[in-house]
Amino acid sequence: MVGYKAPLRDYQFLFHEVFDGCGETAGLGYDVEPDFVDSIVSGWAEFVQGVWAPTNRIGDEEGCRFEDGRVTVPEAFRDAWRQTVEAGWLALPCDPKYGGEGLPLFVRNALDEIAISGNMALSTFGALCSGVYDLIHEHGTESLRNLYLERLGTGEWCGTMALTEPHCGTDLGILRSRAEPLGDGRYAVNGTKMFITAGEHDLAENIVHMVLARLPDAPEGTRGISLFLVPKFLPDESGGIGELNAVSCGSIEKKMGLHGSPTCVMNFDGALGHLVGPPHAGMRLMFEMMNRERLATGMMGVGLGEIAYQNALAYARDRRQGRDLKGVRDPEEAADNILVHPDVRRMLLRCKANNEGSRALGVWVGLLLDQMRHAEGAAQQRAADLVALLTPVVKAHLTDLGCEGASECLQVMGGSGYIREFGVEQFMRDGRIAPIWEGTNGIQALDLVGRKIPAHMGRSLREFLWPLIGFIAENRDDPDMAEFTKPLHQGVRGLQQLTMLMMTRGMGDPYFPAAGATEFTRYFGHLVLGSMWARMVKVSLPKRDEDPFYAAKIATARVFFDRVYPETLSLAAKVQAGHRSLMEFPEEML
Amino acid sequence: MVGYKAPLRDYQFLFHEVFDGCGETAGLGYDVEPDFVDSIVSGWAEFVQGVWAPTNRIGDEEGCRFEDGRVTVPEAFRDAWRQTVEAGWLALPCDPKYGGEGLPLFVRNALDEIAISGNMALSTFGALCSGVYDLIHEHGTESLRNLYLERLGTGEWCGTMALTEPHCGTDLGILRSRAEPLGDGRYAVNGTKMFITAGEHDLAENIVHMVLARLPDAPEGTRGISLFLVPKFLPDESGGIGELNAVSCGSIEKKMGLHGSPTCVMNFDGALGHLVGPPHAGMRLMFEMMNRERLATGMMGVGLGEIAYQNALAYARDRRQGRDLKGVRDPEEAADNILVHPDVRRMLLRCKANNEGSRALGVWVGLLLDQMRHAEGAAQQRAADLVALLTPVVKAHLTDLGCEGASECLQVMGGSGYIREFGVEQFMRDGRIAPIWEGTNGIQALDLVGRKIPAHMGRSLREFLWPLIGFIAENRDDPDMAEFTKPLHQGVRGLQQLTMLMMTRGMGDPYFPAAGATEFTRYFGHLVLGSMWARMVKVSLPKRDEDPFYAAKIATARVFFDRVYPETLSLAAKVQAGHRSLMEFPEEML
Repeated sequence: MVGYKAPLRDYQFLFHEVFDGCGETAGLGYDVEPDFVDSIVSGWAEFVQGVWAPTNRIGDEEGCRFEDGRVTVPEAFRDAWRQTVEAGWLALPCDPKYGGEGLPLFVRNALDEIAISGNMALSTFGALCSGVYDLIHEHGTESLRNLYLERLGTGEWCGTMALTEPHCGTDLGILRSRAEPLGDGRYAVNGTKMFITAGEHDLAENIVHMVLARLPDAPEGTRGISLFLVPKFLPDESGGIGELNAVSCGSIEKKMGLHGSPTCVMNFDGALGHLVGPPHAGMRLMFEMMNRERLATGMMGVGLGEIAYQNALAYARDRRQGRDLKGVRDPEEAADNILVHPDVRRMLLRCKANNEGSRALGVWVGLLLDQMRHAEGAAQQRAADLVALLTPVVKAHLTDLGCEGASECLQVMGGSGYIREFGVEQFMRDGRIAPIWEGTNGIQALDLVGRKIPAHMGRSLREFLWPLIGFIAENRDDPDMAEFTKPLHQGVRGLQQLTMLMMTRGMGDPYFPAAGATEFTRYFGHLVLGSMWARMVKVSLPKRDEDPFYAAKIATARVFFDRVYPETLSLAAKVQAGHRSLMEFPEEML
Repeated sequence: MVGYKAPLRDYQFLFHEVFDGCGETAGLGYDVEPDFVDSIVSGWAEFVQGVWAPTNRIGDEEGCRFEDGRVTVPEAFRDAWRQTVEAGWLALPCDPKYGGEGLPLFVRNALDEIAISGNMALSTFGALCSGVYDLIHEHGTESLRNLYLERLGTGEWCGTMALTEPHCGTDLGILRSRAEPLGDGRYAVNGTKMFITAGEHDLAENIVHMVLARLPDAPEGTRGISLFLVPKFLPDESGGIGELNAVSCGSIEKKMGLHGSPTCVMNFDGALGHLVGPPHAGMRLMFEMMNRERLATGMMGVGLGEIAYQNALAYARDRRQGRDLKGVRDPEEAADNILVHPDVRRMLLRCKANNEGSRALGVWVGLLLDQMRHAEGAAQQRAADLVALLTPVVKAHLTDLGCEGASECLQVMGGSGYIREFGVEQFMRDGRIAPIWEGTNGIQALDLVGRKIPAHMGRSLREFLWPLIGFIAENRDDPDMAEFTKPLHQGVRGLQQLTMLMMTRGMGDPYFPAAGATEFTRYFGHLVLGSMWARMVKVSLPKRDEDPFYAAKIATARVFFDRVYPETLSLAAKVQAGHRSLMEFPEEML
């Protein structure tokens, strides 16, 4: 029953009109033309719509099976994955030296979003391949790169992040897995990991685990953690499948959703592995991969929000209940369609506004990643600062919006939303993991407030705010922009005040900023999406009479500022309320 | 893994200290002592904890099965139900003339909440028995009452509300089911109903359907709908099970949650039934039952919020991750428990504050129901007005809060919240139906804004606001009350302004109030719960040093006004934003 058409026009608008992705990356050693980028995205969209999307509900219904240590994914997944690997889709953003197409990263979030809309469970395998690819590409030895990269890039082999242990998720400082050097450059890794996405499965012929463990001489806490590459099968010298390593899956979890993506308990019993990067540098390296996954997770909010929106909209167009309050719209029918009801439009349009704003942010951050990797000097620094600043916002805010959007779309559909047949309830269940994994959204908020904003005396935040303040000033006299720049101006001032408050009160009491971190992050998220909307409006205004696409952009921006952005008012009040009512509450009376 | 202890102390506080339920109902012909009420509630709590709760996950895992027109509920449900019927628990609030105990209704919401926490799926059967009981008690003939009431009261026979048809849910005016008089006082009912909760099952030996259908001479629209009692088995004269009626189940839905409660397509193929109430009065009568179910549905928010909270709290007490920002709390452990983190407390305490405020509202509305039924003159009128005003708030606001609370509690538990083992994800899935059924929350909002508030020139709203304004004035000089009365005062003024705005703008354009109805309802909901909190604080202040229960109440009220209530600021702004950005949005560009 579920339909999906990738938002191609929206991506063309963002790539070429709002951000000039091809022009910006041309100076960074890339050479892609708008037509080429569009053809890649539309080709992938067609592939996902035709091959991935039809397997999505099958994945939910069949789920993964665990038997005798083996995990079986739904057969439809294996077939879809095989076609994906053969066509080389996943390798597009990879290094041409290792089998890739060298596509700039600003395109990657688009590919991610489309994959997620089509089949979020299947997309998790791809995101992990890509994360492990980047990590080995950046920090692996030449021999590891030659052995692993090409196969990881295509998805012929899959990857995992093996961090969490039963007693430690967020608090990796207390992890217990150990790695003993064997004297031949290899290590024997021992430990139990849990909640390992795609830890074991039969989708690919090999699985490459990136495992955090302690060396024998490691200091305590997070400074004593190293990163190891531990393959399921040890490759022979030509890269063929060799001996089975001492890695086994103990069980898989039964979950609320994402049934097509196995969540595994993994046992490493003297498994042979290679150190990646220097000893005790595991946390820093793993966080590089984690940051890639945080961006991909943020896109889950957009991808699920988008497909939930499309399906709720299709339902609303067909569903006839009640009459337009201003008089019968379709007299030949027993009732008008439910799009005549303001409250139904409110739910749909909020979702649309959040999806499109989030999508713009995704493209911008992708472009910043290209600059961070390939620009030099101040431009590189600025991009790195902004990526660091925006990563927790993308992860937390976009996933929260996606969950809320999926739930509102379900609500649009009434009882039909709640039953499985229409598919939207699956999006809500699948998406609910996104605010949890890769660091809960509460952890993202602490990262933003505790690390990203204070770093370098607020340099990253200035790098975000100053161009925005400039943009507001430039457009102050444009009457068409006033309805958008005015709330942005207030939002910027409010953010500055809240930031000052958090920092000054935080010096006296660390509970204060920690208590308001989530609300602050959401406030900042609304402001960031507001800035995206203002940029999109600016581009759209001169063309609004040419093409209804641009008029709709402006109209959607209005909904954003009317129906989403005012939440900043209450968020500010909640931050200002401080920590006392929370922290003075007697624990035994909870 | 799920634990549950009914909030008995909280109910004692509400029944006897905040509201004086026994005293108030003594003047209405009831005769119950506090000890008796407490023993009833604690007895039911013990029964639910011991008999219902252990079957909750079984219901989710096994679900209902449909085969050859028969629906089978999990066997554990049948056993739990049999014990419930035999002990007579469900008949407690029923009329002593028909096998009940005549318990006042202010106690019923407590019993409902506990049932829902224990097993929401099973509770739906009970709520429907009770709704059908009330309807027949009020409008049935003496012969129908004698035949049906006692068995419905105990749950020996179950009930349904058969309203929805495939093409009509909210818009009942277009329903097509028909009833032909047979000349002997009976009717032949024909039609197909869908989304019928507990339409067919093997929990009880008979099922009594309350069916909306049109008589041959019926006018069009909602004025031509009549109500029929259609039993699955026609009782013989002594009330024993007779012939099978022409009622059959066509299928059951696969749903996001509530797997233990079958959602049925029901076919009435010339089924024999009795008219209940006058011809063409079906909508009014069914809405009496609907209003009972709306209150029960509101309690689903509280019941699920409460059990989600209890389980997330138990998890948080045990789970050790990270350290208190002000220094190590438990040096002998590798980490402190997560209750040291302000953001974790924020999530838990918001849920606690909303649960307890909602519970207070439930008790108050229960008491108003007693007054509405048994008081006279102005007191009766006032109670009826307030019940009418508050019903959409209870339904919409409490279910939204319950869903948000369950989701926040899931978030507290991180990955463990997302897996089925810990049980909280089930509460989120089960509870997601509550904002949909019995009239979606959007419909509740339209009911509040379009009917309940304008009725009698705003009389109901005045009956709510004036005592609250009086309370604020009385306590203006009490320094301990100021932190609560000040935001309430602002909230009251804001509500008055928003109400004026909605009404005046609504005269010019009906879209305006319709566009802001949901946000207005939520604003009102926060104000209503704020008023509950102020009353609870007033009672607790003099006793705060005696018993930490009272100090905790005051502390929870603080969290409510710090972390929940400020949402009124942004809700007001959204209402004020009006309808234009929603309704001028070109439909084809959605």
